[in-house]
Amino acid sequence: MSTEERLGTQERLVRSTQELLWERGYVGTSPKAILERAGVGQGSMYHHFSGKSALALAALRRTAQTMQQTAEECLGGPGTAYDRVAAYLTRERTVLRGCPIGRMTQDRDVVQNPELRTPLDQMFDWLRGRIADVLAEGQRRGELAAALDPVATAATVAAVVQGGYVLARAADDPAPFDAAVQGVLALLAAQVTSVGATGDRD
Amino acid sequence: MSTEERLGTQERLVRSTQELLWERGYVGTSPKAILERAGVGQGSMYHHFSGKSALALAALRRTAQTMQQTAEECLGGPGTAYDRVAAYLTRERTVLRGCPIGRMTQDRDVVQNPELRTPLDQMFDWLRGRIADVLAEGQRRGELAAALDPVATAATVAAVVQGGYVLARAADDPAPFDAAVQGVLALLAAQVTSVGATGDRD
Repeated sequence: MSTEERLGTQERLVRSTQELLWERGYVGTSPKAILERAGVGQGSMYHHFSGKSALALAALRRTAQTMQQTAEECLGGPGTAYDRVAAYLTRERTVLRGCPIGRMTQDRDVVQNPELRTPLDQMFDWLRGRIADVLAEGQRRGELAAALDPVATAATVAAVVQGGYVLARAADDPAPFDAAVQGVLALLAAQVTSVGATGDRD
Repeated sequence: MSTEERLGTQERLVRSTQELLWERGYVGTSPKAILERAGVGQGSMYHHFSGKSALALAALRRTAQTMQQTAEECLGGPGTAYDRVAAYLTRERTVLRGCPIGRMTQDRDVVQNPELRTPLDQMFDWLRGRIADVLAEGQRRGELAAALDPVATAATVAAVVQGGYVLARAADDPAPFDAAVQGVLALLAAQVTSVGATGDRD
């Protein structure tokens, strides 16, 4: 088998596992379902991965990496600190599908397995830290009120997104997600100083 | 069998299902595990419930009812609107266990089943409405800034709790939950007027 074909199989296995974990969770994802979706045989799977847990780890790492890149596109973008956090909060999402990483935190087999929990922990830790950095930068530039706690506010922003998914899925309607985002944005807008309000929004 | 004994069996079945759904989700909860935990035979289960789905519905309704009562104890309590929302946000929780209703929104078999989704939808709909009422009452009393949107802010508050659980479970540490709550409380405190700040906090 050529390197290209091997990579192809491995890639198909990882992508299928990513999808199935998102849709069905860890307990609901059988090795059989992964093989069927990837269109590969059992031998190929065990050639690349020791089993479901190893495949799940590769899939979670990949999903976390993609989420981080998507968030960074907003948080590292142009504009004031408020603009960048607003871009993250309001970026286009398939709200009713929820968050593929947040979803995993409800899976006992994932959170009770330190190896599988690590990509989740690292992703959210990075996200909270990145939002806190953006807010602290806004404060240094005088755009945001000095009294704002960047670390606590960053946790609030990250929680609103994750909790917004929960509310939307319960309602089978994206409206509660959108309301939660608008609510926190309005509270954050009240922390914008006159410098921030007239800031360069290129 | 006496009425008392019948109620005992039914009650044990519902409580066991509540616990198992919280711990393992819908897919991970087998009728066999319910029977074992409840300590009842298969015949008794089918005497009271047509199957797993009917038992899950009874369990979800019960859990939602309990959550609503617990939230109402805080939101219907004494003090200003800010105090009552703060009481809800900071009430004692086993954060790492997460929310038994929020957890269910990640279960495809629950959210894609209109009957099973209904208790989730009703609970969160009630919660957002109740928080919005408390905030609107605070505005009418002049305790909170008139510009605050009670409905959006209520969604934010509910989302912070649900998302806080997600962040805490990813970190295996309640700290991100507590940070998210402190963050939204600080943002909300900035909306408290001089009337609200000197309000009667009986």
